[in-house]
Amino acid sequence: MDRVRLGIIGMGNMGTGHMKNVLEGHCPKVEVTAFADIDPEKLERANKLNPDAKAFSSADELIASGLVDAVLIAVPHYDHPTIAIKCFEHGLHVITEKPAGVYTRQVREMNAAAKKSGVVFGIMFNQRSNPMYAKAREIVSSGQLGELKRMVWIITNWYRSQAYYNSGSWRATWSGEGGGVLLNQAPHNLDLWQWIFGMPKRVRAFCDFGKYHDIAVEDDVTIFGQYENGATATFISTTGEAPGTNRLEISGDRGKIVIEEGKLKWTKLKISEREFCYTVNNGFESPESEYEEFTAHEPSGHVVILNNFADAILTGAELIAPGYDGINSLSISNAAYISAWKDDWADIPVDEEFFEAKLKELSENEKKNRE
Amino acid sequence: MDRVRLGIIGMGNMGTGHMKNVLEGHCPKVEVTAFADIDPEKLERANKLNPDAKAFSSADELIASGLVDAVLIAVPHYDHPTIAIKCFEHGLHVITEKPAGVYTRQVREMNAAAKKSGVVFGIMFNQRSNPMYAKAREIVSSGQLGELKRMVWIITNWYRSQAYYNSGSWRATWSGEGGGVLLNQAPHNLDLWQWIFGMPKRVRAFCDFGKYHDIAVEDDVTIFGQYENGATATFISTTGEAPGTNRLEISGDRGKIVIEEGKLKWTKLKISEREFCYTVNNGFESPESEYEEFTAHEPSGHVVILNNFADAILTGAELIAPGYDGINSLSISNAAYISAWKDDWADIPVDEEFFEAKLKELSENEKKNRE
Repeated sequence: MDRVRLGIIGMGNMGTGHMKNVLEGHCPKVEVTAFADIDPEKLERANKLNPDAKAFSSADELIASGLVDAVLIAVPHYDHPTIAIKCFEHGLHVITEKPAGVYTRQVREMNAAAKKSGVVFGIMFNQRSNPMYAKAREIVSSGQLGELKRMVWIITNWYRSQAYYNSGSWRATWSGEGGGVLLNQAPHNLDLWQWIFGMPKRVRAFCDFGKYHDIAVEDDVTIFGQYENGATATFISTTGEAPGTNRLEISGDRGKIVIEEGKLKWTKLKISEREFCYTVNNGFESPESEYEEFTAHEPSGHVVILNNFADAILTGAELIAPGYDGINSLSISNAAYISAWKDDWADIPVDEEFFEAKLKELSENEKKNRE
Repeated sequence: MDRVRLGIIGMGNMGTGHMKNVLEGHCPKVEVTAFADIDPEKLERANKLNPDAKAFSSADELIASGLVDAVLIAVPHYDHPTIAIKCFEHGLHVITEKPAGVYTRQVREMNAAAKKSGVVFGIMFNQRSNPMYAKAREIVSSGQLGELKRMVWIITNWYRSQAYYNSGSWRATWSGEGGGVLLNQAPHNLDLWQWIFGMPKRVRAFCDFGKYHDIAVEDDVTIFGQYENGATATFISTTGEAPGTNRLEISGDRGKIVIEEGKLKWTKLKISEREFCYTVNNGFESPESEYEEFTAHEPSGHVVILNNFADAILTGAELIAPGYDGINSLSISNAAYISAWKDDWADIPVDEEFFEAKLKELSENEKKNRE
């Protein structure tokens, strides 16, 4: 096999975008041989774009067709795990759009099925391909920042107008999407949070539901996370602020990195602050530091991730974004909801029963109100 | 009267610094005619610096001396209100070091005594004289930022080594100082928070006590505040991080200001985001904006505030930092302690009884442990 025969399930914005990337030659090791959508209009549109591929009106037909080696899942969030599990059962490699799912039990089951199948399983965390974040991860994981102290991420540049939410009836509903900014926009950042800084042991979150839009779900969030070693994380996101900010700061006892406006600013301490603190005689003195700065062109992340997925299938390359990782960012967002609903701390791993019961209740109330 | 005869009570670092400013000619309308300290060594040192002024070994003697029109209070925090009240009873103008006191009841009593006396009452919030913060306040209070949405202040550049805390046995103790970074370093920032952004109705705070130093009080804090209109504030401070950050961001429906590294960056929206959100047809579009930037030399704040205090006495000038305002920043820090101790929300105005009882308990335990 020198090319991966890819089937795309879900021909909305994302599925169409991925197919265009392949058709435009950005993914030479990928061929889109099939696609599926339950909406005839979307199917027709996709067919015009790519008449050589086979069009299916259901995921099941595509999965059973024998025309594909791998599947890209770009349907609404709730169905990511259900479709992925079917693919695994057919021995098909899978790359799913983010988030991995809506509730963690579902995603645990998906991960178990992936493991059992042994196929390649990726997730479209395209921002991992941004060299700034990859560099941050390298600095942190190599220990160059020392013992971690704090992360603060102000990621409020996910601005969306009411027109965005009006563009699909499933959007920003509990029953259709299962959440708001935490589940639709911020999963990238939640993933980078855990990828670079690790998983918190518990969170205290403050979610405002329908604060800036006529929607049921949250569009403004502040999460405070605590770590085993005492480190803390503050994560602030919204779709209701313009102009927003995207500024990530991470500090450890060996210095600090800040990523903002396409720059990674790294201040490196010459000795550990922890050692300095207890040895210096002057109470107001700070440890000496060196400064280094990185800039990089941000590549087309979707293409990088899809090509890497193909390489993993064809040559066994290591995945940049393994599908198994999807449960981490989802655990943070599930915990954030639990914390907001209970107005209290929420542990990670999350209380799955509580989460599912509350989500079900919200979804059912929503449906009732609509009737 | 063409010059204010000033008495300084407390000849530690701050009191000495203020006296030097006057002696060096930075405050031409002020003459230091007396000073007081209970420590003979400090008194002797002050006497050498300023042999023309009268030295007193107690605050009471200085207050009763008839040698001063106004008093600058630079003693440990607990005694700010008690000494201020004595000054007011003698009809003396007062400028107190920050914080206003340790618990709000004490400060309410001080404010009442000030009001009854009718004298000039200031507080050394010298950072209010920083043109960046004054500009921010002007932008916000004139409504140019519109309806306020969010404040995020990362103010982690208050680094102190263990040597600092070892330099005085009262430092960073509940009985001697009544708190840590919130009461000693961050009051400036807490004051600017309320001065620019207004008072939150309640806070949820996370305080780590003795996290980075061998001390009883907090040296790492994250405060989340909520406002009547739904706005939120996140405030992060520590004395345990190097290099620290000082970055203040405020957003409203008319734009955003960021103060960092001596610059105020102002993004002004051409129309209200709230209006834009519900009228634009494109879901991904953001409102148009203009950008303006300010830089300014930061003056010697202590001198500005002391000169303004003298002008208020001599010519009725408006105070930049009225003493009455001190209760606001103290209310935020008291509420933060209550929230951390209770592991729950804390309203503002604070539960004074709970706060005082807990502070007393911590102070007494501390004394017992020392014996």
